[in-house]
Amino acid sequence: MTARTSARVMGATIALLIAASAFARGDEGMWLFNNPPRKQLQDKYHFAPDRVWLEHLQRAAARFSSGGSGSFVASTGLVMTNHHVGADALQKLGTQDHDYMKMGFYAKTPAEEIKCVDLELDVLMSIEDVTERVNAAVPPGADAAAAHQTRRAAMNTIEKESLDRTGLRSDVVTLYQGGLYQLYRYKKYTDVRLVFAPEAAIAFFGGDPDNFEYPRYDLDICLFRVYENGQPVKNQDYLRWSAAGAGDGELVLVAGNPGKTDRQDTVAHLEFLRDRLFPSQMRKIYRREIVLRTFSERSAENARRAQDELFMYENARKARLGVLAGLQDPAVMERKRAEERALREAVARDPRLQNECGSAWDEVAASLRVFAAVLKDYDAMEQGAAFNTGMTGLFPIARGLVRMAEETAKPNTERLREYRQSNLDSLKQLLFSTAPLYEDFQTVKLADSLSWFLEIYGADNELVGKVLAGKSPRQRAVELVHGTRLGDVAFRRKLLAGGVRAIEASDDPMIELARLVDPASRQARKIYDEKVEEPQHQAYAKIAKARFAVEGTNLYPDATFTLRLAYGVVKGYTELGRQIPPWTTIGGAYRHSAEHNGREPFGLPPRWLERKQRLDLRTPFNFVCTADIVGGNSGSPVVNRQGEFVGIIFDGNLDSLIWDFVYAADSGRSLAVHSSAIREALRKVYDAQALADELGR
Amino acid sequence: MTARTSARVMGATIALLIAASAFARGDEGMWLFNNPPRKQLQDKYHFAPDRVWLEHLQRAAARFSSGGSGSFVASTGLVMTNHHVGADALQKLGTQDHDYMKMGFYAKTPAEEIKCVDLELDVLMSIEDVTERVNAAVPPGADAAAAHQTRRAAMNTIEKESLDRTGLRSDVVTLYQGGLYQLYRYKKYTDVRLVFAPEAAIAFFGGDPDNFEYPRYDLDICLFRVYENGQPVKNQDYLRWSAAGAGDGELVLVAGNPGKTDRQDTVAHLEFLRDRLFPSQMRKIYRREIVLRTFSERSAENARRAQDELFMYENARKARLGVLAGLQDPAVMERKRAEERALREAVARDPRLQNECGSAWDEVAASLRVFAAVLKDYDAMEQGAAFNTGMTGLFPIARGLVRMAEETAKPNTERLREYRQSNLDSLKQLLFSTAPLYEDFQTVKLADSLSWFLEIYGADNELVGKVLAGKSPRQRAVELVHGTRLGDVAFRRKLLAGGVRAIEASDDPMIELARLVDPASRQARKIYDEKVEEPQHQAYAKIAKARFAVEGTNLYPDATFTLRLAYGVVKGYTELGRQIPPWTTIGGAYRHSAEHNGREPFGLPPRWLERKQRLDLRTPFNFVCTADIVGGNSGSPVVNRQGEFVGIIFDGNLDSLIWDFVYAADSGRSLAVHSSAIREALRKVYDAQALADELGR
Repeated sequence: MTARTSARVMGATIALLIAASAFARGDEGMWLFNNPPRKQLQDKYHFAPDRVWLEHLQRAAARFSSGGSGSFVASTGLVMTNHHVGADALQKLGTQDHDYMKMGFYAKTPAEEIKCVDLELDVLMSIEDVTERVNAAVPPGADAAAAHQTRRAAMNTIEKESLDRTGLRSDVVTLYQGGLYQLYRYKKYTDVRLVFAPEAAIAFFGGDPDNFEYPRYDLDICLFRVYENGQPVKNQDYLRWSAAGAGDGELVLVAGNPGKTDRQDTVAHLEFLRDRLFPSQMRKIYRREIVLRTFSERSAENARRAQDELFMYENARKARLGVLAGLQDPAVMERKRAEERALREAVARDPRLQNECGSAWDEVAASLRVFAAVLKDYDAMEQGAAFNTGMTGLFPIARGLVRMAEETAKPNTERLREYRQSNLDSLKQLLFSTAPLYEDFQTVKLADSLSWFLEIYGADNELVGKVLAGKSPRQRAVELVHGTRLGDVAFRRKLLAGGVRAIEASDDPMIELARLVDPASRQARKIYDEKVEEPQHQAYAKIAKARFAVEGTNLYPDATFTLRLAYGVVKGYTELGRQIPPWTTIGGAYRHSAEHNGREPFGLPPRWLERKQRLDLRTPFNFVCTADIVGGNSGSPVVNRQGEFVGIIFDGNLDSLIWDFVYAADSGRSLAVHSSAIREALRKVYDAQALADELGR
Repeated sequence: MTARTSARVMGATIALLIAASAFARGDEGMWLFNNPPRKQLQDKYHFAPDRVWLEHLQRAAARFSSGGSGSFVASTGLVMTNHHVGADALQKLGTQDHDYMKMGFYAKTPAEEIKCVDLELDVLMSIEDVTERVNAAVPPGADAAAAHQTRRAAMNTIEKESLDRTGLRSDVVTLYQGGLYQLYRYKKYTDVRLVFAPEAAIAFFGGDPDNFEYPRYDLDICLFRVYENGQPVKNQDYLRWSAAGAGDGELVLVAGNPGKTDRQDTVAHLEFLRDRLFPSQMRKIYRREIVLRTFSERSAENARRAQDELFMYENARKARLGVLAGLQDPAVMERKRAEERALREAVARDPRLQNECGSAWDEVAASLRVFAAVLKDYDAMEQGAAFNTGMTGLFPIARGLVRMAEETAKPNTERLREYRQSNLDSLKQLLFSTAPLYEDFQTVKLADSLSWFLEIYGADNELVGKVLAGKSPRQRAVELVHGTRLGDVAFRRKLLAGGVRAIEASDDPMIELARLVDPASRQARKIYDEKVEEPQHQAYAKIAKARFAVEGTNLYPDATFTLRLAYGVVKGYTELGRQIPPWTTIGGAYRHSAEHNGREPFGLPPRWLERKQRLDLRTPFNFVCTADIVGGNSGSPVVNRQGEFVGIIFDGNLDSLIWDFVYAADSGRSLAVHSSAIREALRKVYDAQALADELGR
């Protein structure tokens, strides 16, 4: 399949699928575990999972702090996720001599398992509704600033109380963009060890060209083991292994953490994403992808250092382009307009509802005008785009230390959300991370972003002048990266132990930079929190109320990177008149590679080439289903009615990308690795018989 | 050398070299052939080339319409340029089965030489000053619109008269941004045939990572033969071959066509480039580079189709980043400010000069405010960024046909410059080009640029609505590319033959698009021509006058892609305390490849690997000199005092990139392929003994 064919298919089919599915939403939904789609499952599939079934799946699922999902697949603390979710850990463990990403890894014995750097796994133990308490904290008639502050205080307090009482990680989650607030309690694991990873060449076979495409042939898995007190966790909530995997047309269920969707956004909000936010993000992605690619191309070691981050930008670029294509399609937007019109008309017909909720759409629009005005500062300063050293680079560490000292000196109720008492341990894990920080790589990224900073604020801007201190962006980046001592974790610990006084007295150039930009950054954050987010929470709470009143409460909220249940069937689809079968086979991988003459990124690992004869080439490799997933679901287990593991989500096809704001399953599909391929590969390619046997036991 | 090392060097050394060379400009200058640097050559090198020497070099030099320089290197019409200048021709000749770029080519006999598609070579025959006539046409006190129109009419008329009288291509060239107007007459060659090209792997060895770097090991050459009336041209003005090439410290001269420099720009103008124009161009480059890279990565054939265009963007990105780094360096801008201050103070001290020229700087600034306001429209519409199908793609063809019909119906004096009578033949060569237009590749580019168009003008813009016609950008691109018949050259000829009536009646979708956007596009062009360019010409004419008065007339104008003479010495330099020798050797290429384990783009062609033993590995390969060159000089011959060919310019190092607006030769260097490497490779790698013997004969 060429880029153009699939892209054209996408363009050609969006309008089609909208027309066909205007009222047939199929297997839509990212359901809360405390509000599962009982009716849909019963009506359509005659399946009625009971509370035990659901709770078992909930506790077998795990959320990865690096941004994905996973599940316990054995009683011995074994957790499976995608290779591209484990990649953050693989990258941080890697050295010039050991490239775990590229070469893969297998610990034949527990002693060989490698402890990961700053990886946290969260298992959802309970959900409690706290909407009333959170909303009650906000005095009637409070202005947005007061409302935000009292709401934040209430949430920080609820979390602190829960943590103190239960010892569990406690997060108040905002659902329906403000319609509900629920307290999620997690068992948190921080001793996570690497057990198995395949080579990147088969985990991400087809690379960026095949990303978000189908048919696919990716062994996108990675196995970790969770430890407590130096011993593997013994847990009863793990998934049994399905003997044969799921068949064509079979019901499957997915438990995972979809990251963010915009399905309930107002049309004005979607237009804002289309016209302002996403284009601005795309410009950043294009630029950074080029910076990373050119850095990578200079040497094999550079490529190793940048590989995980480069993948992140490539992946974001391709996903975002798919979403933008949908938002730029008049037929898609017309559907959203019609839906909004219908809801607003229903609200207008009910005077009480109109009085309570009728103003919400205008309030969202007003908040977006504020967002448009503060976007530049919020992005450059608060999101740190002007000081890019990577997500866990020197600048975020410097800012984290500066703010940690300042915020923890305040009462818990007055702190910025991420510095709430209940979150400090997780934050410290990042601040004191021993993940490698390569000076050359840090410098390249920082120099580019300082140059961008100068570009968008202008050379005469006072803060730009102070940040650059009379140097060129590159000279300044060199000075900052080479001058800072933050590469030394002991230095960071000592600095933080000294509190605000030590931070303020520090002459470390990166700490000085973080201090210098903090007032402007906090100012942008304050505007965003109080004038964008808070009014949106209030307005979307009204819209949610209207929707509950008009459409009933059998609804699911937009994704929030918290645990959700999705369902669907294993099902092929039609593309340009061609029938795409529901699964591929291991033999197909060899054929696909041959079609590209084994040219990068279509080359198979040597081990796969050598052992081709051993493999049953008819073994299902990847399969598609209609379950409703988005980014963040990567690594989610796919189970059958018996709750058995039949596969692991790793991607969606191009036509699924618009699921970010509208679900339609005519040709949109979730992609999963088939359980059979996992066992087949472990046994015959990797000689990991013991590990294969451990799965599901 | 890693990216960071060289980049850091650059940052670190800019300030240094500015300090060191504030008054020592070294071998600066891109001199007019009718105002050569006699005094400098005499004073510094005791060299006094006479008129015959200069005219011989002038006529041995050739300009490539694809954007580079070259020279006659035999009496048999043989012309040498860079591989990356010939690449446009190689790309257009290529097919899925014959990739001349990748595989190279050698015509052992004249019969095997391949005629190129739409390649034009221009040889400068004479220069005549027409400043008085051009300026006299502008009535005193005329407003900018009238001034622009009368000036354009005068230039079109002068060129038409000259063409009719001499039969030579006649261009009025604007020098000193409006200080002088000179009539350049060229002998034009359009039957140009491919004789020899090496493989891209050695022509562009090191690829993007090594581009603009040194040491280098590139056989960046390509040989064509010029025909007239079906026979090779017999010419006396060709370069003899130097037996040994140039030695360390030896004076060398370069005849070529530097494309564009901004050295005489006012500081406000440079700030405009830094803050507005270049960032906007960079955003486009980043985006298009990603579009082309992702298209390329899908298959080997895609990569072949996109390779020349992808190189263009990669090259532009790296060059522009170097220039921007200079403009963002406070030390560099301070030097420009000091220079401007000194000139303005000198003007202010002379009441007559102050009266005539004193307002010029403010006038330039005023023109830039207009430019800033019209930039979006000018770029999207008139430059066609919203309808990108490549430089010679379907949209430029459609627009060219629409405008050709309209413009040629007007008197010559009233036409847009590029449709002046004297330029029509060259234009037609492009409009009727048989170069391949791949539908998939055209669609990908057009879809992306239509998406950008929607993004920057908004979905509610009326013209956007008309252009997209209710479709998504991708659907519309598919419709346009697949619906147009412009891929058929006969259709184009017929359409143009029908004149305005046929164009207006055409229902070809691409012609309809070109018609649709033309009013808005012409409006932006009119504002640019009359309110930006014309006032700048007038203002810069005053600044040029001031400079002549203050600094004397021994000055050179900014580059205009016309023939210039530069000079310098073969000379190494120091980088981070390390001495970089003036030349590399053929043996160095093998070592450099080995350092990267032969990994792309550091792999040598199979032929080079096989024949390593035959080669004298000590043969000089590339060398550096201080001659003042920029983009457009690619392919320029480097000659010694005897006028013998000693090398061919193909690049500059990173520190030379700021030469766009300030020359400094502390560590900035021009890069050339050494004449000895050319003969050695032709003989021993390519078995092209006859061709090697022909050189210089």
